[in-house]
Amino acid sequence: MIDELVTQLGPAQVLTDPDVTKSYLHDEAEWAPYGTARAVVRARNAADVQATVRWAIKHDVPVVARGAGTGLSGGANALDGCIVISLAKMNAIREINPLERIAVVEPGVVNDDLRAAVATEGLWYPPDPASSPWSTIGGNVGTNAGGVCCVKYGVTRDYVIALEVVTGTGEIVRLGRRTAKGVAGLDLVGLFVGSEGTLGIVTEITVKLRPLPDRGRTVIGYFDSMVDGGVAVREVARRGLTPSALELVDQTCLKAVDDLTHMGLSAEANVVLLGVVDEAGEAGAAAARQLQEAFTVGGATYVAETDDPEEADAMMAARRLAYPALERLGDLLTEDVCVPKEHVPEMLRRIDVIAAETDTTIASVAHAGDGNLHPLMITERGDDAARERAQRAFHRIVDECLDLGGTVTGEHGVGLLKMPGVAKELGPEVLAMQRAVKAALDPHGILNPGKVF
Amino acid sequence: MIDELVTQLGPAQVLTDPDVTKSYLHDEAEWAPYGTARAVVRARNAADVQATVRWAIKHDVPVVARGAGTGLSGGANALDGCIVISLAKMNAIREINPLERIAVVEPGVVNDDLRAAVATEGLWYPPDPASSPWSTIGGNVGTNAGGVCCVKYGVTRDYVIALEVVTGTGEIVRLGRRTAKGVAGLDLVGLFVGSEGTLGIVTEITVKLRPLPDRGRTVIGYFDSMVDGGVAVREVARRGLTPSALELVDQTCLKAVDDLTHMGLSAEANVVLLGVVDEAGEAGAAAARQLQEAFTVGGATYVAETDDPEEADAMMAARRLAYPALERLGDLLTEDVCVPKEHVPEMLRRIDVIAAETDTTIASVAHAGDGNLHPLMITERGDDAARERAQRAFHRIVDECLDLGGTVTGEHGVGLLKMPGVAKELGPEVLAMQRAVKAALDPHGILNPGKVF
Repeated sequence: MIDELVTQLGPAQVLTDPDVTKSYLHDEAEWAPYGTARAVVRARNAADVQATVRWAIKHDVPVVARGAGTGLSGGANALDGCIVISLAKMNAIREINPLERIAVVEPGVVNDDLRAAVATEGLWYPPDPASSPWSTIGGNVGTNAGGVCCVKYGVTRDYVIALEVVTGTGEIVRLGRRTAKGVAGLDLVGLFVGSEGTLGIVTEITVKLRPLPDRGRTVIGYFDSMVDGGVAVREVARRGLTPSALELVDQTCLKAVDDLTHMGLSAEANVVLLGVVDEAGEAGAAAARQLQEAFTVGGATYVAETDDPEEADAMMAARRLAYPALERLGDLLTEDVCVPKEHVPEMLRRIDVIAAETDTTIASVAHAGDGNLHPLMITERGDDAARERAQRAFHRIVDECLDLGGTVTGEHGVGLLKMPGVAKELGPEVLAMQRAVKAALDPHGILNPGKVF
Repeated sequence: MIDELVTQLGPAQVLTDPDVTKSYLHDEAEWAPYGTARAVVRARNAADVQATVRWAIKHDVPVVARGAGTGLSGGANALDGCIVISLAKMNAIREINPLERIAVVEPGVVNDDLRAAVATEGLWYPPDPASSPWSTIGGNVGTNAGGVCCVKYGVTRDYVIALEVVTGTGEIVRLGRRTAKGVAGLDLVGLFVGSEGTLGIVTEITVKLRPLPDRGRTVIGYFDSMVDGGVAVREVARRGLTPSALELVDQTCLKAVDDLTHMGLSAEANVVLLGVVDEAGEAGAAAARQLQEAFTVGGATYVAETDDPEEADAMMAARRLAYPALERLGDLLTEDVCVPKEHVPEMLRRIDVIAAETDTTIASVAHAGDGNLHPLMITERGDDAARERAQRAFHRIVDECLDLGGTVTGEHGVGLLKMPGVAKELGPEVLAMQRAVKAALDPHGILNPGKVF
């Protein structure tokens, strides 16, 4: 069977040696199960993807697409006997068009590489997941990735206007448009963004760009507790401010980052809240002052606007390093709950209670301005009792988030880890609608089956 | 059959008198065919909609949802023997929440009424179709309506985060979320926005809001020809400017508006280009200067920044009146093509050629900054030869737009008028995907059948 694929694509494109394929079998969701792939296809172009999908239809073999494997929900994890299609080699930036303010890229382009390339034209691709130095635009499209600046500038779906896709019936089609607007039929582009490889495999992406913003002003606040920080976040929303970043980092994260970077943040603060405003001129200065006042209302023990760009960059870099820094401490089980801004303090309070009651170390970073919280359960490797307690904490956090009108996944995607939570969140009728759409576009049921819904 | 519905909903909700129902049978697409409805249901709530859909499933009767009937593609036109569900009476604003920056409305709320209500809280609902004094948010959702300020602030889909929907199987479900972000499963909200009543009937809408912007600075340019105006528009894009409005109005429209308002615009200019920039302070002043320079590059015969807010409002109001003013001149066949900004001058040139070659009066207004052009074929009522020529012009414009990489509908929706163009634009594979999704969510085929795809 595989020989047929090797003949079509060439041996260099089809990896079957288990020692080689094993690094393609899972993403960074350490707690999500994964199987053993029949082979890994390193696609060079859409034709390779099409040939693989057609082969998979013929032989009824599941196909799992992956980019850099930085996902946090197990969405790209291999299924036993599947083909993994790696799109990492399809990493050409095909076009940057300043007049139309768009870029056309292959799915394997790394987020930061796109960002750097368009910056040379004074342009900006906003979605900036913490994984941006490694994660690919294709993967970002698969999960509808968010990031730090999404609080003001929106998520991946807000920037994708066209896709080339290999469909569940093995066709190569173009969805969407190059124009600024368009309503020709159902929005299949938006449907594919965030579909985690369950509807088709994306082979080209056209994204909207924005003008590169000002660097902005960074306001730092120290707090005694996460709940206090949450109160400040709610106050920012209550005042109608629109920061371009509003990030909350707790003591456990600060310590882990200190261990990695020797920045010494954790000695200064229990909890750090970082806000950025990027309006130009006096409007920016006024917004920064408002931000400081809001932090003070939340009970900040220290608050200041950084006038040192290097300090501001270092603080934001520390925030981005939280996940890799924490990974050194043990196995991480990552939440991605998102609650209405009103309820950020209460959700943080409930997480504290759950941590105490389940005797689990829960570190927290948060895109707090979005209400998007990432409590991370950390367990020592091999401590099964701790794992069991962490899992209980995970499910309780999901339940509390739903109780507060939130969603179980703000930006990481459903994958495998969030399936039970999503089933609860959506309910049987909506889940049935989701499955009907999936079945309509993947009639052979080969595209990342058993994930999401 | 209908008696069953009357018993369930009460006689006041079910209109069957042809003299009464006739005003519910079509939208403002004068050239689109429409049939005779079996009855018109004036829904009071989601339960009324659900009862009607369940009745329609049972009796295999098509259901056509309508708001204010201001559509321009025939999307809300009745089919013979159908039930028209009017959602106009469901016009309550259920919530305005400044902290979450959202509003929750029933589908029959008029766009301008929502706009006025949220303005009292210092908030803004940006999508502003020219029909905003009359069209409903439900209708705006159905067509993914655009408008003047979309060039900077996006279209309806960019603001809708949750929907309550009566599905094709007669369930009432909630799609989406109240949170700032969320990726729990496929984006059914985005799929429903712009689906023109073919996937379900929307009974509640949650929209994001923005802070009310500054009034901004208005720059007016006069040009000898539309093509010159188009060159100015392209220059605005080339300079990387982001106006919050960039509207082009031709001589025919100016004259028609003058007839209505006695403003005397048409004596001063052949073509008017209106630009607005809404950055605060010095940034706004600089952007307005840049806009003037771009207009000059396009060959403007006169260009000035208006410092009189009343003049600015009057100019924009004149733009919004173009459609009703032209309707007095004859039957209108409305295009809604959208091309890449690069090609705006060329598309305008081709429209001139088509007007000459088909001997057809083509008036033009354009959301030019989006590349979204509205050439309007005007024919005297009863002149069949002129109608036939106008129809030829219509199809040629569609073909030229596709040749330039455009879309046949930027914001009006497909309805009936744009079906042939959309079929050409999407191609058979994508059309098959669209139909598969439609069939998955409307398994009984009762929701606005025969429209869009």
